[in-house]
Amino acid sequence: MRILLTNDDGIYAPGLRALRSELRKLGEVTVVAPATEQSAAGHSVTLLTPLLVNEVFDDDGKTFVGWAVEGRPADCVKLALLELLPDPPDVIISGLNAGSNAGINVLYSGTVAAAIEGAFYRQTAIAVSLEYDKKIYDFPRAAHYARQVIEQILNHRPPPGSLFNVNIPVLERGPIRGVKVLPQNISPYTEKFDRRVNPRGRTYFWTSPDFNCPDPHPDTDVTALAEGYITVTPLQFDLTDHAKLEPMKKWTWKLD
Amino acid sequence: MRILLTNDDGIYAPGLRALRSELRKLGEVTVVAPATEQSAAGHSVTLLTPLLVNEVFDDDGKTFVGWAVEGRPADCVKLALLELLPDPPDVIISGLNAGSNAGINVLYSGTVAAAIEGAFYRQTAIAVSLEYDKKIYDFPRAAHYARQVIEQILNHRPPPGSLFNVNIPVLERGPIRGVKVLPQNISPYTEKFDRRVNPRGRTYFWTSPDFNCPDPHPDTDVTALAEGYITVTPLQFDLTDHAKLEPMKKWTWKLD
Repeated sequence: MRILLTNDDGIYAPGLRALRSELRKLGEVTVVAPATEQSAAGHSVTLLTPLLVNEVFDDDGKTFVGWAVEGRPADCVKLALLELLPDPPDVIISGLNAGSNAGINVLYSGTVAAAIEGAFYRQTAIAVSLEYDKKIYDFPRAAHYARQVIEQILNHRPPPGSLFNVNIPVLERGPIRGVKVLPQNISPYTEKFDRRVNPRGRTYFWTSPDFNCPDPHPDTDVTALAEGYITVTPLQFDLTDHAKLEPMKKWTWKLD
Repeated sequence: MRILLTNDDGIYAPGLRALRSELRKLGEVTVVAPATEQSAAGHSVTLLTPLLVNEVFDDDGKTFVGWAVEGRPADCVKLALLELLPDPPDVIISGLNAGSNAGINVLYSGTVAAAIEGAFYRQTAIAVSLEYDKKIYDFPRAAHYARQVIEQILNHRPPPGSLFNVNIPVLERGPIRGVKVLPQNISPYTEKFDRRVNPRGRTYFWTSPDFNCPDPHPDTDVTALAEGYITVTPLQFDLTDHAKLEPMKKWTWKLD
């Protein structure tokens, strides 16, 4: 099995390293990932600047790892499929992200966007993220679980273009309670900015780390993750609100 | 009516200027928009750098326009709602974008992401884009149509959090044939990269402007726009593939 591995934390991120080690048990892994951290890149792509690429080797200086791209996660997947990989992959894995990607965070996530980009090309793609609590991460152990979930998803032989979002709970909170298939939570988050003034009198804001979902819907990725389950959500990228289409088609329009 | 206007082409973009003029016929317009071009920013947000803001005035130097934000379109909407606007807006308008946002381009679009960000906050939001052909734009005329479509959408009193994506066809191709409510096209695009080598021998790629949808589904935003219709698509931001949820819930999982 040929595996394309990408992420949004950058090619040298420990989450990617840990997941690469595990995925090599399943097949041949090639990494095409951003040269630098791209957290919250969403589905941005690079139009205005060139995408520099660099071959990257393992610590031994000899084992080929893949390519670092000075671009966004979605750029990496495009470049991998169209230019860099000699053969198309059997699956695209994005992660292991430092921080969960559940609820509306799925929309901000570069990790998930990389997987969606793969699905645009009719590739099967799986995004995998690790929740954090006080910035404690046990990536090797999380990658051990991630690889098992990925393997079991692929055993079901999902059709080309299938897309999945996997989240692994904080491991320090207790044993994993199991795996749950659930929808993305879509209830609002609350967030804050920290307002400051620079020495020249100009106002600026820092995004505060307090980004909370005070009232998540039950039986969603957000609630199950908080309860200690690994969550798996099948995704799609049609943003049409189909329930509203038919009533809106009856609207009359006038233009002058 | 209080209108928050944003975009992804930057606060000084001609599309925004034209749309602001038209929207002032409907109510009080405050602009909170990126200081610089953010095309294809997707739903990225700024976590790692401060968001500098600057008050912007009209050409007379006196009429307050709003705030330029050194951030992404979605950052602008967050900041507007949480920090900058004295009162919540009645509607958020994003545009008028230079270039259509139809098909899977909706996912790359900073224009649409700004509207989705508004919907996260249970605001009614409308993204508006103008198709281009050979970089010819008639923004004032397009804004004249955009304002009429926006006005008619709002006349239906959509519930809070309603989200719409409007595309206006190239005006030079002929008269507008009408307004159609249609789903987002989700069939694949073809694209290319231009591979080059820099003077130091390092490979880089430019994204090619040839980004085409060779086989769009009939009766979608992409096809109707090409036929000369203004398209209106109701959007939502739940990426869950609900059809796959129930069969997947029967999968068994094993972890060691």
